[in-house]
Amino acid sequence: MNAIGVDVGGTKIAAGVVTPEGEVLAEARYPTAKTTEERLLSSIVRAVTEVKDGYEVGAVCLAVPGSILAAENKVIDSPNLHAIEGIPLKDELEERVGLAITVENDANAAAWGEFRFGAGREVAHLVFITLGTGVGGGVISHGVLLRGAQGAGGELGHVTIQATGPRCNCGNRGCLEALASGTAIGRCAREVASERPDSTLGRLAAKRNVLGEDVTELAKKGDEEALEVLEEAGRWLGVGLAGFVNTFNPQVVAVGGGVAKAGNLLLDSARREVRLRARSPARDLVEIKEATLGPESGILGAAALARDVSGEYVLDL
Amino acid sequence: MNAIGVDVGGTKIAAGVVTPEGEVLAEARYPTAKTTEERLLSSIVRAVTEVKDGYEVGAVCLAVPGSILAAENKVIDSPNLHAIEGIPLKDELEERVGLAITVENDANAAAWGEFRFGAGREVAHLVFITLGTGVGGGVISHGVLLRGAQGAGGELGHVTIQATGPRCNCGNRGCLEALASGTAIGRCAREVASERPDSTLGRLAAKRNVLGEDVTELAKKGDEEALEVLEEAGRWLGVGLAGFVNTFNPQVVAVGGGVAKAGNLLLDSARREVRLRARSPARDLVEIKEATLGPESGILGAAALARDVSGEYVLDL
Repeated sequence: MNAIGVDVGGTKIAAGVVTPEGEVLAEARYPTAKTTEERLLSSIVRAVTEVKDGYEVGAVCLAVPGSILAAENKVIDSPNLHAIEGIPLKDELEERVGLAITVENDANAAAWGEFRFGAGREVAHLVFITLGTGVGGGVISHGVLLRGAQGAGGELGHVTIQATGPRCNCGNRGCLEALASGTAIGRCAREVASERPDSTLGRLAAKRNVLGEDVTELAKKGDEEALEVLEEAGRWLGVGLAGFVNTFNPQVVAVGGGVAKAGNLLLDSARREVRLRARSPARDLVEIKEATLGPESGILGAAALARDVSGEYVLDL
Repeated sequence: MNAIGVDVGGTKIAAGVVTPEGEVLAEARYPTAKTTEERLLSSIVRAVTEVKDGYEVGAVCLAVPGSILAAENKVIDSPNLHAIEGIPLKDELEERVGLAITVENDANAAAWGEFRFGAGREVAHLVFITLGTGVGGGVISHGVLLRGAQGAGGELGHVTIQATGPRCNCGNRGCLEALASGTAIGRCAREVASERPDSTLGRLAAKRNVLGEDVTELAKKGDEEALEVLEEAGRWLGVGLAGFVNTFNPQVVAVGGGVAKAGNLLLDSARREVRLRARSPARDLVEIKEATLGPESGILGAAALARDVSGEYVLDL
């Protein structure tokens, strides 16, 4: 039976009808309405209703940003979508949508997507990291999605790797997110720009705010400063990944999100750091690679979870 | 059926006959012979043979120090017991002992002991940390011991929490072990002693090498500098635990090993750091407490694993 995966993001809501084999039959996108709870719920209902039209669908899973409390099907803390905090999503939406609804953290859902259909589909142990404005994570260990006791597990972006490091969005210092996100890359690039005003980064910074994606673009053209910035971010990423390798002994670490577009310009230095910091035999086994599903991983993973976790649909694990 | 758990340590080998309910019926201890592979194997055989005398026993599990490669039943890297590295333990020992043998990392085995019989027996999600000369860890998530793809998972002592921090035994910088082990506490105490030669720690350091256990002893008597040293170690422990709380969303974090004898003098500052650094709702749920089994956790956990993992004995999970 098909399922619907809904990726509820801070700026847009994307819903897709997905087959058990991971084919997306239809997709709908709307901007995320955030001014009131009712508008937010309506935009989710609209996306689901539009996309399911004409398809037989068994269940829906919402991939939501932030830490969830699974027993209550709600988001506790969502820095990029405060409007969603505290809403009992299952209760509010099931009747309006007319389908069984489950709720999962967005990065956990994307990890499950990569596990079922993408970079981790051959393995039982996968660590997934998504590098964007923030850093999210999800872990599959022994074939099990690590949700933890409340569904709040897998918050790999807020693991401390440099306790005295820069301030993170979450209020702490030295989280992986504070050192290897797109935001961190932008910050590092602006520092380099101010140190070297005659560099390409420096000249760009004189005109406008330098962002993470500028760094990737320049690095791909061979710009030395941009390459340095990516290499530093890659080292920090590697510090975090080494910890995850020692913790989970995974076969694959898959890195997704916008920042992963830098590819090996970022990942090569992460791999070097993992080789230095992770222990044998785990470090010798692990393959660190780009995630393969792109922005659809959330939809695909959520749809698979809608089937895999709801009693009726535990079919094909 | 009873099983035998064997805790193979750097200085002693302890074997125990354990009932399915976690009662230790008999125990044998020998110093660990490390000069040759044959002597090491003989001392394991002797401990098992002595302890099993008169009991009906179904299987044996060896809890071994260092990273294991489960498929080959061998230890890859054991800083405190190099003699054990590379020995195919199952092949070498099964015939001599006359019982089915499995191999597990010692901290993973102790974690399983706490999960089955100790601080984690009421929960499905447990993080176990043992603080001694080094730092070991083991994780049970969704009731599953996180061995990872090769059996090398759960190396929580070598997760980086301060990338530019002090050198660790493993060669890296800023591992949890480098900042919160008994060794780290001793090092910190010696630093304080040299800064304040008139303090109790300073006067002790003038006579002999100050160790981690001296700090605990003095702190329990209210010594200010010793309390400061424990508080600092507790903060670092908390930085690591906060990452594990965000990663695993466990109900319980159990802290064992010699250093845990400091109790709340160490754990209170760890708890404060976790409240600062871990995210809601995970930080609100988790209980950080002392492990309850003491030095027998390895024997108890290994014996339980001998039953729980061998096909014949998957009885009572």
